[in-house]
Amino acid sequence: MQITSTRILRSAALAGLALATTVRADDPLPSWNDGQARKSILEFVAGVTKEGSPGFVPPAERIAVFDNDGTLWAEQPLYFQFLFALDRVKTLAPQHPEWKDREPFAALLRGDVKGALAGGEHALLEIVMATHAGMTTEELDTVVKAWLGNAEHPKTGRLYTEMVYQPMLELLAYLRANGFKTFIVSGGGIEFMRAFSEQVYGIPPEQVIGSSGKTKFELRDGKPVLVKLAELNFIDDKEEKPVGIQQQIGRRPIAAFGNSDGDLQMLQWTAAGAGPRFCLYVQHTDAAREWAYDRSSSIGKLDKGLDEAHAKGWTVVSMKDDWKRVFPFEK
Amino acid sequence: MQITSTRILRSAALAGLALATTVRADDPLPSWNDGQARKSILEFVAGVTKEGSPGFVPPAERIAVFDNDGTLWAEQPLYFQFLFALDRVKTLAPQHPEWKDREPFAALLRGDVKGALAGGEHALLEIVMATHAGMTTEELDTVVKAWLGNAEHPKTGRLYTEMVYQPMLELLAYLRANGFKTFIVSGGGIEFMRAFSEQVYGIPPEQVIGSSGKTKFELRDGKPVLVKLAELNFIDDKEEKPVGIQQQIGRRPIAAFGNSDGDLQMLQWTAAGAGPRFCLYVQHTDAAREWAYDRSSSIGKLDKGLDEAHAKGWTVVSMKDDWKRVFPFEK
Repeated sequence: MQITSTRILRSAALAGLALATTVRADDPLPSWNDGQARKSILEFVAGVTKEGSPGFVPPAERIAVFDNDGTLWAEQPLYFQFLFALDRVKTLAPQHPEWKDREPFAALLRGDVKGALAGGEHALLEIVMATHAGMTTEELDTVVKAWLGNAEHPKTGRLYTEMVYQPMLELLAYLRANGFKTFIVSGGGIEFMRAFSEQVYGIPPEQVIGSSGKTKFELRDGKPVLVKLAELNFIDDKEEKPVGIQQQIGRRPIAAFGNSDGDLQMLQWTAAGAGPRFCLYVQHTDAAREWAYDRSSSIGKLDKGLDEAHAKGWTVVSMKDDWKRVFPFEK
Repeated sequence: MQITSTRILRSAALAGLALATTVRADDPLPSWNDGQARKSILEFVAGVTKEGSPGFVPPAERIAVFDNDGTLWAEQPLYFQFLFALDRVKTLAPQHPEWKDREPFAALLRGDVKGALAGGEHALLEIVMATHAGMTTEELDTVVKAWLGNAEHPKTGRLYTEMVYQPMLELLAYLRANGFKTFIVSGGGIEFMRAFSEQVYGIPPEQVIGSSGKTKFELRDGKPVLVKLAELNFIDDKEEKPVGIQQQIGRRPIAAFGNSDGDLQMLQWTAAGAGPRFCLYVQHTDAAREWAYDRSSSIGKLDKGLDEAHAKGWTVVSMKDDWKRVFPFEK
């Protein structure tokens, strides 16, 4: 993996762009079309921030949780972290001659991603564990940052951190400007997301909840390190999302944002609290600017969640209709 | 368990007192005697907050972690959460006739706490699990709050939330006034601590890290709940404290505060980062106002940690010599 200085500059410039998302008083959500979705967000925020009103929520309780893959950044043609893991397999292959004869690694090294993924979630987990284990948490952070500063998305040729949704960056900034604390609650690896969440989303590491492997405290040459083990700790998906929220936040969110059935329990948990609640699904309806997929997709499947959103009157965002701009790099 | 209105008022008044700990510009630590410990704190904070100086640390990285039992509040004659669990055994006994013939419960119900604890950590864990499991997280929160508003410490007759250390309340407020984010990292149960941490210490639930059991997301009559299982999730002690910090904060603290060997790895992990670092041990040296114990105590043993503190020049606070006042209720 070689990092060119152009790439680093591009990455830094992008980060600046995201963090510089200031909130305009006259139009806090400039990339949102003037429709029902935008209106429901503005009304909810106005309601919970109006002191003295029955729906007022004190700032400490203004917790908003966001899924990441497919909600804050794209997730096609494969979860970006998985593309990172695939690159790691190639990089680490010389140190693992046994991978040539062992699936799913053998298929990957032949360039057969589909074959490698035939093993389903188990194969995916094995790849992530095998490529992450043994590193210290700091080493992993360095490797992820280097990859993010260099690797290109297969379709757009953009850095992965450029494939974040401009309307969602604006929404994050708008909520924070109104006293909300914004959290990521995603199936993605917690350390992978923390490598860019602060720079790109303005979300600090302590507000990132994700899947994780176990780690072990060790003294190496008298220096304490945390070493990643090839053992699963927590998968932050479906029924486990409320568990992760309770474990790390300890307070029920009042607003939740997702894009798939994997987020449904998080939205249910959020909706079931007392007082004003806001639940929103992003629906991928824009094959031209992004991708179009929902009920039958293997990645980001949105089926039961869509039914429940309609039944319960949650906000459903159509990327095609509700967003003026999808990615920050669009004119 | 009966809660008198006097008790609730007393509890509320105390909470007001703790939260009202404002920071005086002329003397931010009024309950600290003018000695080396106080001086080392003031110098560290002055150094990391001075913009342009080589030791300057940006606010986002000013993470301070505090043990709870024996560091922020007392822990004698037994960890307060264990006293809570003992009371729960008595309350729940009618629903558990089998406990009469089963240790450690039988011993507890005979009033033989020492006998019940003969089983060591295993017995303690079994008691906590048995008394917490089956409840939803919200039910546990309610029960803990009711207990804290009513139960009296066996020696002082005070509420447990009154047995917090006034100098440490001042230190928490002083650090926050200087841009620090203060976290609890304690072996205590995460939900037990969250029931009072915000009111008493000004530390919100999302900044509390502790031991935990597993929980399960369920729909009960269509309403989502998180139910506590009788299965251990994480013990936040010794080598696991840096693991818990990495899991929940994802950033290495620059300051760490503890009182026992159980905090040593947290202090080592904190000390090993680059740039200015601050590690402090509270030593229980005041048999008159609090308790005196260290190297040979079964609770809050401070032995290896004390040696390392002396060898590495960490700050060691003598309660007797460094603190003008121990508890807020002292004149």
